[in-house]
Amino acid sequence: MTIITSKANSVVKNTKKLHQKKYRKTSYLIEGWHLFEEAVQAGAKIEKIFALAEHAEKLENYPQTILVTEEILLDLADSQTPQGIVAVIQKEEERLPDFNQGKYLFLEDVQDPGNVGTMIRTADAAGFSGVLVSTQSADIYSLKTLRSMQGSHFHLPIYRMPVENFLEQAQKSGLSILATTLSKDSKDYRELDRLEDFVLVMGNEGKGISQAMADQADQLVHINMKGQAESLNVSIAAGILMFYLS
Amino acid sequence: MTIITSKANSVVKNTKKLHQKKYRKTSYLIEGWHLFEEAVQAGAKIEKIFALAEHAEKLENYPQTILVTEEILLDLADSQTPQGIVAVIQKEEERLPDFNQGKYLFLEDVQDPGNVGTMIRTADAAGFSGVLVSTQSADIYSLKTLRSMQGSHFHLPIYRMPVENFLEQAQKSGLSILATTLSKDSKDYRELDRLEDFVLVMGNEGKGISQAMADQADQLVHINMKGQAESLNVSIAAGILMFYLS
Repeated sequence: MTIITSKANSVVKNTKKLHQKKYRKTSYLIEGWHLFEEAVQAGAKIEKIFALAEHAEKLENYPQTILVTEEILLDLADSQTPQGIVAVIQKEEERLPDFNQGKYLFLEDVQDPGNVGTMIRTADAAGFSGVLVSTQSADIYSLKTLRSMQGSHFHLPIYRMPVENFLEQAQKSGLSILATTLSKDSKDYRELDRLEDFVLVMGNEGKGISQAMADQADQLVHINMKGQAESLNVSIAAGILMFYLS
Repeated sequence: MTIITSKANSVVKNTKKLHQKKYRKTSYLIEGWHLFEEAVQAGAKIEKIFALAEHAEKLENYPQTILVTEEILLDLADSQTPQGIVAVIQKEEERLPDFNQGKYLFLEDVQDPGNVGTMIRTADAAGFSGVLVSTQSADIYSLKTLRSMQGSHFHLPIYRMPVENFLEQAQKSGLSILATTLSKDSKDYRELDRLEDFVLVMGNEGKGISQAMADQADQLVHINMKGQAESLNVSIAAGILMFYLS
């Protein structure tokens, strides 16, 4: 195992660049043992492992391990608790899911990394077949998204595409588009017919879904609320809908 | 209207102290027009308003307005987008809700301010009667919690108490305690009998509910998952359960 003790080391500096999206073309950073174990289990290609010396034994089968100081580890991580391990994972090629059957989630321009990650984690828990993410949504490989996602990107196919391409694909396939709106000129989710195959669309936190999406949707759906709150957080709404529909 | 242009001004400095919990004994800070309007509508006592000069006209009925520079406003807020307004709101006295009927949410040592805020917002949307928060849970008056809560603390009674007191109160009242666990040795929520009056308990993000809570609960409940995700985010689980039960 290599040992690095200086933050100025070029390996450390180059790895830190992965905090920026433009450098995450082929690989990305994860932090913490939970995500590391998920990566191992998924058979992901682990390019580098940065760990504290106290974990050397646990990592003896990984020659790509680099032992570093706590200071370097905190510099590579973005949380205050990387739990002694940060790793560089090779991105897998995205596969456009077979779009003829199954339950899918489409995120249309969802901005917040925490929301994107949480909704993907929830889609996984609800047994969805895959998640499609619009090009304008938050990057799924940022440390923040990965933290909320809790390894679900190792379980589910996730595909990124422009909204127009999604609308084209959805039209070709027979999948119903269920698009979530705030407008009460739509069905409450409890009135929906049970569907086996569909794409549930969640929109941007501020603006909701686009007009093009509303126009092409097979069904517009909202969540009736009893209290005085004006709206639900988008991840909460997605959770309620996915578990209701699954 | 007063005008302040220096960050070193003592009014600004004292107000900034409200970022720290220990100074929030009698008042707290809110940011943005949405929360300000919620405060007005709720009849909350607004002690001070800090706003950009461009909003002076809209605030002419509020003599407590202080016009400040953008720099001061960003210093008082903790988000990058306070939308030109930050206000100091007087805390209302907490009222222990009438605990004999209704639907309540109890948060047992939930750490993350975003989770606490989001669950209170969701309880509001689901028409719950009130929220009880354990003493060890995140403060509801931090800017982060307030942001996620979106004004729901103006709609719902929220009461903070030690877990032991809650268990005592719950025993005195006839309310059923539905406590959420990760263990499958409990009922899936879809098998629950419909209840009119209950307290739903959500536990700590890492540790779940306490043993004392599990011992006293009338019913333990979990959410069956189909996919490979190990768990749901606590706010998502709360959202699914509250909307199912309401």
